[in-house]
Amino acid sequence: MAVTIALDAMGGDHGPTVTIPGALAALNQHPDLKLILVGQRELLTQELARHKSGEHDRLSIQHASEVVTMDEPPAQALRGKKDSSMRVSINLVKQGAAQAAVSSGNTGALMATARFVLKTLPGIDRPAIIAALPTIHGHVHVLDLGANVDSTPEQLLQFGIMGSLLVGALDHKERPAIALLNVGVEDIKGNEVVKKADELFRTSNLNYQGYVEGDEIYLGKHNGQVDVIVCDGFVGNVALKTSEGLARMIAQVMKEEFRRHPLAMLAGLIALPVLKAFRHRLDTRNYNGASLVGLNGIVIKSHGGTDAVGFANAIRVAVDEVQNRLPQLIGEKLAGLQGLAQESAASESA
Amino acid sequence: MAVTIALDAMGGDHGPTVTIPGALAALNQHPDLKLILVGQRELLTQELARHKSGEHDRLSIQHASEVVTMDEPPAQALRGKKDSSMRVSINLVKQGAAQAAVSSGNTGALMATARFVLKTLPGIDRPAIIAALPTIHGHVHVLDLGANVDSTPEQLLQFGIMGSLLVGALDHKERPAIALLNVGVEDIKGNEVVKKADELFRTSNLNYQGYVEGDEIYLGKHNGQVDVIVCDGFVGNVALKTSEGLARMIAQVMKEEFRRHPLAMLAGLIALPVLKAFRHRLDTRNYNGASLVGLNGIVIKSHGGTDAVGFANAIRVAVDEVQNRLPQLIGEKLAGLQGLAQESAASESA
Repeated sequence: MAVTIALDAMGGDHGPTVTIPGALAALNQHPDLKLILVGQRELLTQELARHKSGEHDRLSIQHASEVVTMDEPPAQALRGKKDSSMRVSINLVKQGAAQAAVSSGNTGALMATARFVLKTLPGIDRPAIIAALPTIHGHVHVLDLGANVDSTPEQLLQFGIMGSLLVGALDHKERPAIALLNVGVEDIKGNEVVKKADELFRTSNLNYQGYVEGDEIYLGKHNGQVDVIVCDGFVGNVALKTSEGLARMIAQVMKEEFRRHPLAMLAGLIALPVLKAFRHRLDTRNYNGASLVGLNGIVIKSHGGTDAVGFANAIRVAVDEVQNRLPQLIGEKLAGLQGLAQESAASESA
Repeated sequence: MAVTIALDAMGGDHGPTVTIPGALAALNQHPDLKLILVGQRELLTQELARHKSGEHDRLSIQHASEVVTMDEPPAQALRGKKDSSMRVSINLVKQGAAQAAVSSGNTGALMATARFVLKTLPGIDRPAIIAALPTIHGHVHVLDLGANVDSTPEQLLQFGIMGSLLVGALDHKERPAIALLNVGVEDIKGNEVVKKADELFRTSNLNYQGYVEGDEIYLGKHNGQVDVIVCDGFVGNVALKTSEGLARMIAQVMKEEFRRHPLAMLAGLIALPVLKAFRHRLDTRNYNGASLVGLNGIVIKSHGGTDAVGFANAIRVAVDEVQNRLPQLIGEKLAGLQGLAQESAASESA
């Protein structure tokens, strides 16, 4: 199935020096993929010329004169930069010229723009950010990772429904196991919002497994792994960024120890294949690409600081979602759920 | 200076098999330390007999007939088990027979019991849990780690004041640098409580450095390290436990890779001294021992699953706090702050 994806080629900390090699790598990985590089034509043409495989018949450029900076307030980007590479990428999705947009740009601006241009699915207040994280057993999807702070119990339930549908489609699971992130597994623990959300999840049709604590994100819950972990965006963002910081610190300390003296360096050389295999298994670049779920269209947020390997992975996530007909699938299931709710309300009042 | 500390010898996942060797290790490390093992005398005597250095003139046993289990509801432990090893340990602090209590038991029960027996310092609503975490530059203290969910902006300010005083005393810093944990560094980000707390911190006398994000817990803030990071207990607990889970997963994956085939095992053997040095630098046992700060007395919470090395470290934290006259120091400074506030209110109304 042919897939066309619009790339915000100017976004991220490194702009076209990362997005263009990332795009070229993705084209090699996906034979049916077409990519539209969105951004300043001259700059993109120059950067493309620097790559041997830069001439590609499945790659085109869509000019956009402006760039949203990484620290620009979302409202300013939305109102003031209507010809930004980010906005034009999302417009291409709206117009049907692309089936998904991928950006490493400013998260707040991307969220605001995507929501304004594409609108949310019926029944969804605000989109959420969902991504897969590596775990000891495989991976787990976590949402929300920062789009929504001060979420209500009802929003957490919406996150659960969206996460369940997304993971069901992408991982081909019938009834993904869902858990709520909490500070303890006993009923007495938790804040007010989480306790109320727990009640909503219990009466829902989701395959709800109760609470998990922070360590269970990576280690799994007791006798197995859950598929989706739901939390408020403030909490999810802290968990994600804390993990990033810890992983970077561990890598840094290990590097320092293997460089401390010649014998350690020699040991490091000997252990290099093992250290590489280790690093590969936990390579965050293979998990790059978070979905803005709940929109009428596919928008993938790539990490601002990622490299070409990571950016290509974010494109892979977009391809995967297009091929699995998200968000049409989520929209249909949500409409079904709302139909059910209306029927049940009608039968109760009858 | 002679220090006497009461140990809840029955607490934690492993009880006396960890607390007793931990206690003996601590006695070796601190020549002026006296320890009171609190728990079932017969069991403790038996366990002591298993250790060569079990006969120790600085070690005594205080019998307590009951044990608080790890999943017991706090209210039940508080009302129903008045002769528990946990309760008797804290009573010894209240009575002045010990200057601090250390327990690896049930956090909720420990918090409830400590608060009931010792009471909070004037001006403090609820105690908070504070601990040091390793960072790339050294360490940072984080609070609250789970005692208070749904904290108000005023409570976050209290955490900041207590954290500043504790770190000032323990790390001998004049004006520790304080930051608020948030999901972004721009003013527009954050939830309502954090934004309001930011205003309170700005008008306080604390050495306030603004927001930090999750990754900055371990990597430091831009051009340096903050000394204290303040957050709600729900968020802090998730950050702490997520870190524990990730660290364990990384260790597990590394072990698996070094055991994958004979050559990898050989490489692991050669790299062993480096891997050991690496592990030592990030050894969580060296950071075991969280303080229940804001009480009229010193209570240290040790990780429930720790070993003797970790338990001995929690005792070291207790010794350090006794020697630095916490919480007297915090009480005096708080009283000074309240005096100032009253004077300023009086002069305003005059």
